[in-house]
Amino acid sequence: MKKNVNIAIVGLGQIGNYFLNELNIKKKYIELKTGKKINVVAISAKNPNKKRKFKINKKLFYKNPLDIIRKSKIDILFEAIGNSDGMSKKIVEQSLKNKIHVITPNKSLIAKHGDYLAKLAEMNKVNLEFEASVAGGIPILRTIKESLATNKISKVYGILNGTCNYILSEMEKSKDTFDNVLKRAQKLGYAEPGTPKFDLNGYDAFAKVKILSSLAFNSKLSKHKCLVEGIENINFKDIDIANQLNFKIKLLGVTELINNQLFQRVHPCLVKKDTYIANVNGVMNAVITNGFPVGESILQGEGAGPGPTSSALMSDMLFILRGNIKYPFGISDVKRKKVKAYNINNYSNSLYLRFEVKDKPGVLSQITKNLAKNKISVERLIQIPDNKRKTASIVIITHKANELDVQKCLKSFKSNKNIFKKPALIRLLSN
Amino acid sequence: MKKNVNIAIVGLGQIGNYFLNELNIKKKYIELKTGKKINVVAISAKNPNKKRKFKINKKLFYKNPLDIIRKSKIDILFEAIGNSDGMSKKIVEQSLKNKIHVITPNKSLIAKHGDYLAKLAEMNKVNLEFEASVAGGIPILRTIKESLATNKISKVYGILNGTCNYILSEMEKSKDTFDNVLKRAQKLGYAEPGTPKFDLNGYDAFAKVKILSSLAFNSKLSKHKCLVEGIENINFKDIDIANQLNFKIKLLGVTELINNQLFQRVHPCLVKKDTYIANVNGVMNAVITNGFPVGESILQGEGAGPGPTSSALMSDMLFILRGNIKYPFGISDVKRKKVKAYNINNYSNSLYLRFEVKDKPGVLSQITKNLAKNKISVERLIQIPDNKRKTASIVIITHKANELDVQKCLKSFKSNKNIFKKPALIRLLSN
Repeated sequence: MKKNVNIAIVGLGQIGNYFLNELNIKKKYIELKTGKKINVVAISAKNPNKKRKFKINKKLFYKNPLDIIRKSKIDILFEAIGNSDGMSKKIVEQSLKNKIHVITPNKSLIAKHGDYLAKLAEMNKVNLEFEASVAGGIPILRTIKESLATNKISKVYGILNGTCNYILSEMEKSKDTFDNVLKRAQKLGYAEPGTPKFDLNGYDAFAKVKILSSLAFNSKLSKHKCLVEGIENINFKDIDIANQLNFKIKLLGVTELINNQLFQRVHPCLVKKDTYIANVNGVMNAVITNGFPVGESILQGEGAGPGPTSSALMSDMLFILRGNIKYPFGISDVKRKKVKAYNINNYSNSLYLRFEVKDKPGVLSQITKNLAKNKISVERLIQIPDNKRKTASIVIITHKANELDVQKCLKSFKSNKNIFKKPALIRLLSN
Repeated sequence: MKKNVNIAIVGLGQIGNYFLNELNIKKKYIELKTGKKINVVAISAKNPNKKRKFKINKKLFYKNPLDIIRKSKIDILFEAIGNSDGMSKKIVEQSLKNKIHVITPNKSLIAKHGDYLAKLAEMNKVNLEFEASVAGGIPILRTIKESLATNKISKVYGILNGTCNYILSEMEKSKDTFDNVLKRAQKLGYAEPGTPKFDLNGYDAFAKVKILSSLAFNSKLSKHKCLVEGIENINFKDIDIANQLNFKIKLLGVTELINNQLFQRVHPCLVKKDTYIANVNGVMNAVITNGFPVGESILQGEGAGPGPTSSALMSDMLFILRGNIKYPFGISDVKRKKVKAYNINNYSNSLYLRFEVKDKPGVLSQITKNLAKNKISVERLIQIPDNKRKTASIVIITHKANELDVQKCLKSFKSNKNIFKKPALIRLLSN
């Protein structure tokens, strides 16, 4: 790469704007570390006049991002619009085709079109870097691609969504409801305004799981339907009971190979209080990797926000400036295999079940009978009466039970008038 | 780098032998990841006939490691003898001069001669890689050099010696003495046989602190005298009392910049039980980095043993095979500055002090008077009587006290016949 490097930034929201400022104030430091002089020569966003934390130079502004490629000479382009399609995809595609390196924190774009875009990058001998797309300031992608490159990785899991982790931690601490804590999180900037649907329903974490799977198992991004559950239905009652049973509730993303079949999932988990993962609180993210011969590796850090994200974007840029031309997913597109999906119906796991029932004779027996019929064995059972309302909560921790049996069993309770609502189901973290 | 790469391994102890086997069984995988075919063409060790876990090919054996460079064509050499001088230094030096890339897990060599060897590598345009020298399987060096490259790092600290951490964890768990636990650690292979002096006295961790400082602060390796204390004098009594006070004792390595002056130290620390670092147990290592804008990053993993070390050596090798020619310490030798040392006499910190005294009137008053005279203020005081022996333990947690005052004060107790032994002093971890 030549000495003077031209840079464009497309998307000037919180992330893009912060990063633009970092580029401007760290020019000398970047030269010290790489020997290259960088210059931001083009920027683009929806609205040039929006109020921003750091001022932008309007002389560099392009209304249409695609004009940047047509009209100026760019070496590296940052995409920070953040959609899986539309202009996000178009500008990345066009940049790669024009032999421009691309850096993006856009997990939905990579999770959806990563295979295609990586192939484009490889064909055009440029880099497509996306360290910031998974777990912000935690260098988990580069760690898997480089530091653990010759390990046989069997499992990667962790806390991949800071918003959810903050809400769950805060519900526990303040004994408050989901809705109230969500409002607080929004005030503090830990959750998007409105309904941050993709954070809460698990799909944000799932995009990250997909990217992690690809890197850990040298495979193409999977298109399989997977188990994805969010935290919208987590009740303070469950956090409280879990606490009494010596558990905490965390939203985990997990990917592992079971008999060479890929099992990806995102769902709330009951984790034992004395484990490492149970004690990762607030907006922190953490990723645990099991590999051979390295053993268990843990990486923890801030998962979102302009600072940590910008740190990851910078590391991607230095990587390019230092002339490391690499395959986006660690190996060549033609070597990345498709992996068969594990059939979740074969999955057996311990469960936490909570039934809200009428407090009258026979109800407990109806439940336990039905569980037994479906081969679900009870490890622990607690009945908590609500004498005022003449109801009770029945909480059951099961031995390992088959997913299909469980779904069948839970359906069978639908017609039972002694059971209000759908029973709450939270999986335990298996070893 | 050409397609076929010739490799030599010098030193076939636990690490070298394990790594040799990994190289042999992972050839195809390495080719998948890098496109290069590797071949081990030379090995050397003190004794070719020693019983080893993995067989060695004696046809490749050289009695004198230097003959490898003279007689065969090598691209990458692994040094795994492990001394700071002697043949370790000689073979690395000769390799670099002959434009051979070097990979080593040898922390004492790098901590002592790293500046000189890095300069040699730079002059000869080859790599000197030493990821395995600090915290085994944890990719902390590459994380600082690359992933956090543009952050302003203010502090790096952590558990850097698995042997010490195992001994302290195990003393707490089993309520056993230092000597007994050390014997168990040796049986389990967690501590070297004999007296593993450099593990126990803190100098192993200190070599790692020096390397971390250099990378974090873009500076030359410091030659300053520093505060280095080991765990040899940690008594079960202290672990027990610390426990009652809601602390654990950990051997920490710390490096930080205070007013642009370098403050490096290794010593046992009282850390609050509910902190992350307090819960890193057994042979695990952990490194915490405070940087801006990334925030706090934590990396945890196995710190020693052939598996994790081999994983780090492999990552170094892939780095070279992928053609990443880099400065060993992240920036060019001429750009690395000398940093002034922080004067420890200016250091103020909270302390845990334990006095063993005669249980008679006036002793407590002698101690507190003396502390007051030296401007050491008491935050908490506990007297634990031993009625049988008519003695008592007086444990004091101080407010922040100046290091110089403390040393002066402790000296003044020497002549006091009511105080047996030298008082135990353990520093609290400051924020």
